[in-house]
Amino acid sequence: MNKGMAKVSVLYPNGEGKHFDMDYYVDTHIPLVVQLLGDSLKGAAVEKGLGSAEPGSIAPYAAMGNMYFDSVDDFGKAFGPNAATIMGDLPNFTNIEPIVQISEVVI
Amino acid sequence: MNKGMAKVSVLYPNGEGKHFDMDYYVDTHIPLVVQLLGDSLKGAAVEKGLGSAEPGSIAPYAAMGNMYFDSVDDFGKAFGPNAATIMGDLPNFTNIEPIVQISEVVI
Repeated sequence: MNKGMAKVSVLYPNGEGKHFDMDYYVDTHIPLVVQLLGDSLKGAAVEKGLGSAEPGSIAPYAAMGNMYFDSVDDFGKAFGPNAATIMGDLPNFTNIEPIVQISEVVI
Repeated sequence: MNKGMAKVSVLYPNGEGKHFDMDYYVDTHIPLVVQLLGDSLKGAAVEKGLGSAEPGSIAPYAAMGNMYFDSVDDFGKAFGPNAATIMGDLPNFTNIEPIVQISEVVI
């Protein structure tokens, strides 16, 4: 993505008793988000946690979802009216409370 | 980046008394990493934290650096011999202990 864009990352921290259904996330949740956010969403990326720095260690995050917008304002306008629908879908694939990070793309 | 690639994310959690010199990170640290890892590194991205879900809130992470490799094995081979040099540069731009996440690119 391009320098200056807004990136919204949704990180799902691993932990005891936590679960995350990657199939549902990829096949149902992400398409729902893409449909609801429409043209404001310039790109999306999803990663599945494998590990940490030490070999054999548990990944800090079970999954990370990333969305790109031209600006934070564009994100707010697109996400706000759909927030309840999108967040309401979370219990269908995870019991993890995600961390939301809004960033500026620097490189 | 492409499905199946390995993504290594280095996240710098915000906190009281924490600092992060983005200029040094972008102008010196990332070029050092790119030079040391060579052709194994297929791409790099850097983001600066702006906020969280609530308007006016502090970003969970001051910065995030992301590196892409064809495989986790490629990462290990490229990073291992250079780990001391790369990690040794951290005190030059931050006092934050980063979180390292190794992921598989799913989307």
